[in-house]
Amino acid sequence: MTNPVLVEVLRGAVVESLHRGAVAVCDGEGKLVWEIGDTAKPVFPRSAVKAIQALPLVESGAADAYGFGDRELALACASHSGEPEHVETARSMLARAGLDETALECGVHWPGNHAATIALARSGGVPNALHNNCSGKHAGFLCACRHSGVAHRGYVAAGHELQDMVRDAMEAVTGAAHDADHCGVDGCSIPTYAVPLRSFAAGFARMATGTGLGPVRANAARRLLSACMAEPFMVSGTGCADERLMKAAPGRIFVKMGAEGVYCAAIPQLGLGIALKCDDGAIRAAEITIAGVLAKLLAKDEDLAGNLHGQAIQPILSRNGVKVGEMRPGGALVEQL
Amino acid sequence: MTNPVLVEVLRGAVVESLHRGAVAVCDGEGKLVWEIGDTAKPVFPRSAVKAIQALPLVESGAADAYGFGDRELALACASHSGEPEHVETARSMLARAGLDETALECGVHWPGNHAATIALARSGGVPNALHNNCSGKHAGFLCACRHSGVAHRGYVAAGHELQDMVRDAMEAVTGAAHDADHCGVDGCSIPTYAVPLRSFAAGFARMATGTGLGPVRANAARRLLSACMAEPFMVSGTGCADERLMKAAPGRIFVKMGAEGVYCAAIPQLGLGIALKCDDGAIRAAEITIAGVLAKLLAKDEDLAGNLHGQAIQPILSRNGVKVGEMRPGGALVEQL
Repeated sequence: MTNPVLVEVLRGAVVESLHRGAVAVCDGEGKLVWEIGDTAKPVFPRSAVKAIQALPLVESGAADAYGFGDRELALACASHSGEPEHVETARSMLARAGLDETALECGVHWPGNHAATIALARSGGVPNALHNNCSGKHAGFLCACRHSGVAHRGYVAAGHELQDMVRDAMEAVTGAAHDADHCGVDGCSIPTYAVPLRSFAAGFARMATGTGLGPVRANAARRLLSACMAEPFMVSGTGCADERLMKAAPGRIFVKMGAEGVYCAAIPQLGLGIALKCDDGAIRAAEITIAGVLAKLLAKDEDLAGNLHGQAIQPILSRNGVKVGEMRPGGALVEQL
Repeated sequence: MTNPVLVEVLRGAVVESLHRGAVAVCDGEGKLVWEIGDTAKPVFPRSAVKAIQALPLVESGAADAYGFGDRELALACASHSGEPEHVETARSMLARAGLDETALECGVHWPGNHAATIALARSGGVPNALHNNCSGKHAGFLCACRHSGVAHRGYVAAGHELQDMVRDAMEAVTGAAHDADHCGVDGCSIPTYAVPLRSFAAGFARMATGTGLGPVRANAARRLLSACMAEPFMVSGTGCADERLMKAAPGRIFVKMGAEGVYCAAIPQLGLGIALKCDDGAIRAAEITIAGVLAKLLAKDEDLAGNLHGQAIQPILSRNGVKVGEMRPGGALVEQL
């Protein structure tokens, strides 16, 4: 099936570009309460499931042993923008486990935050693996290995004991089999598994409610989502959509973007999980879509819904800073809002 | 109608993302010789038509009066990446008309080329309007104004004499009316008009062949396309698709990207023009599509077609530089290749 239009990009009065995709909203029992498009099709969740991938860090006792609070747990679930606070927090997480950035196997890239890149270059510096947007997740992986007595070298590879723990957590929480036929390698070198989009929505409803997870996992899940909601900057960075959306309703909205147009989210008070994927992989469209979906689900709180609806409409500016267009919910998303 | 899939993005063996769009191939008479998807729908060409927009620079006599060669004419048609050669050439074009960067009204952004941005920051510099990817086009606009005795201030606005000249050239070459209802503002602040995609394909066939343009315009068109094909670096930048594609067959392929997933191209020896637009605005997909379309149209030259087909398949690398997927022609594009 062809997924419907979710987002339209206008220049002046003309629709210049369109984005299609699918949205699933589930409860903790796995019941689909709302969907747009094909939510049964397997998709790679990419970084949108980092909070689930961080469960072994907490469940193993490593997070407590190393004294991690909300900031460290949020960074373990983050795609951060390489700003100094992110880098220093990742460094300190590793130090508590007796490691440094040379243990990270995520690769190196310049900070996602432009000002951080310029400042690093101006200081004569070059990036290292701590600047990688996944360094917090990888620091969490390494801490889980160290605390559990697992040799950490090669921890990114499918088949390493740590990745088995991560996959087991993913399967248990999403309820979907993670098999080798649907396994790819993520940008930071760890395995990523394509499973039905709706399974991720169900998984994040379970992360928020604990439904069916058992007490240890349910507690770890709540701690991780609470940490992200308490420290949205650590999950993302200055001006990022994740920070903006979680700041709109502290403690009431969890969101996490993933590469190639994915978002996962949860609204704990409603017991709902959300997962969406834009067919074309556009993160700009995923940001509009998640804001629009949250506005719909939280419509009863008019102030909050107004804020979220505002975030679902983003101006397009010329290089002189003049508004020349906008991105907004369109097609199936607007019909259902 | 829903446009068909042109490009698929794989991670491992799984299709992770898809891009839809339309492709038109026309001759100089305006006859559609090949199409995929809806080529009658109006689209904004954005920067893909800079060579047509540069016609007044040549036709007015300004290019000759200021002694512009291939490098300057190519830069006037460019979306350059802000590397030092681009910046210095734009500066020198303005200087010949007695102007400097303060006359540019395109706005300021950091260089598109990452290494150029890092080098600029390391040197303690900040970007100015010369680093804007459109500075060559704007320098050409300013030179056309100066040589023609037109007051240049406000030259970016619809209704300015220079923009009337540009619009008249666009209408004459594409054969499509450019009306206010389909006018938007481009990122560099000049008007951009949405007209049927196939009109741009016909326009570039005319640019390459001179069909119906009259001798002065036909000569100016040939000079501009020849300059771009002779200096592909000046049209784009290090490692850019435009440079790669034009270098594959010097003098035989003209290509120009445009924002929001547009490409225009010409194959002078075949008398054909090409225009394509990816629905979602993804430039990565437009790059794959144009390489695939050129490979098909030039299939008789096996070596060249092999090179172009290779350019139509681009690896996706992890942050450790390991191949984890690829982008390649898919759906309608692959069925017709």
